[in-house]
Amino acid sequence: MSEIEAILEANRHYAEEHGTTDVPLRPARRLAILTCMDARIQLFPVLGLRLGDAHVIRNAGGRASDDAIRSLVVSTNLLDTREILVIQHTDCGMNRFDNAAIRHHLLAHLGVDPGESTDFLTFADLHESVREDVAKIRASPLLPKDITVNGLIFDVATGRLHPVGETDTDADLAHVHGDDAAR
Amino acid sequence: MSEIEAILEANRHYAEEHGTTDVPLRPARRLAILTCMDARIQLFPVLGLRLGDAHVIRNAGGRASDDAIRSLVVSTNLLDTREILVIQHTDCGMNRFDNAAIRHHLLAHLGVDPGESTDFLTFADLHESVREDVAKIRASPLLPKDITVNGLIFDVATGRLHPVGETDTDADLAHVHGDDAAR
Repeated sequence: MSEIEAILEANRHYAEEHGTTDVPLRPARRLAILTCMDARIQLFPVLGLRLGDAHVIRNAGGRASDDAIRSLVVSTNLLDTREILVIQHTDCGMNRFDNAAIRHHLLAHLGVDPGESTDFLTFADLHESVREDVAKIRASPLLPKDITVNGLIFDVATGRLHPVGETDTDADLAHVHGDDAAR
Repeated sequence: MSEIEAILEANRHYAEEHGTTDVPLRPARRLAILTCMDARIQLFPVLGLRLGDAHVIRNAGGRASDDAIRSLVVSTNLLDTREILVIQHTDCGMNRFDNAAIRHHLLAHLGVDPGESTDFLTFADLHESVREDVAKIRASPLLPKDITVNGLIFDVATGRLHPVGETDTDADLAHVHGDDAAR
């Protein structure tokens, strides 16, 4: 059976419990979250959010791509959000791969070359990636000046969020795990 | 209080219940979902998904932007997903606004002109938008040929998913609502 049939069946149960509601279009807590597409991040319970609380933007890596910025421009300017959280996570595929490896894979399996200059937004250092993306969002001329932007790391093993400060490193997070080998 | 403090407090409770787990990086149900950032879509319960089941890609409109395709390229080729669902929804901001209105808003409120050619990926017809994005994903040379791509519409008022066929129109959905004025 195609997954779509199982999903439609599950959705019928959801809709029965949902009933007819009229939750406003504008997020109640004026929050916008940018995070990764990773299947291990069930964002609403991770953050204690309720239906209607926050915009959720997700892509491979949770990166501040041009399209994520497009979404944030709409979220803040048109739909009145005022606080942005960038949440990337441990054990991310975009940290395991790099552009050369992805290009090689596509060439080998599809016979298609995405081109040497294609950036899949992989990253080598998780904390640096969060800081880089927070800085990119803060620097966007198309976002209001009075918004707050913060960066966090979600640990997929423990479910915990860790705020990313200016000097925190990936080794600090390994220490939280007691993973001395990674230091 | 900044929302981040409330979120970190809520997350401590989540992490206590979460405990330490080892859910695989690759989605168990080999699914990738593309949907909108809208705050009224709590995707896991809407689709009956469990932690680790599916990649979730979200942006303003749930559009098949170049960045959404980038995420799907990684999801399918590197992380073995095989079925993609494009889920856009009723009462979407990107259906209420158009490019000219967003540009005018940014000029009036920020004093910045994004340029006449900037496409915020707004859309005038919900069913056409879903069909267009499904077709764009199916046509991408960087996605495997054996994947399935389907389009659905999520009704934010009822919580129901509606598959989008080749000839369904926005008027059909209005009929489901009994909203004769919209026909």
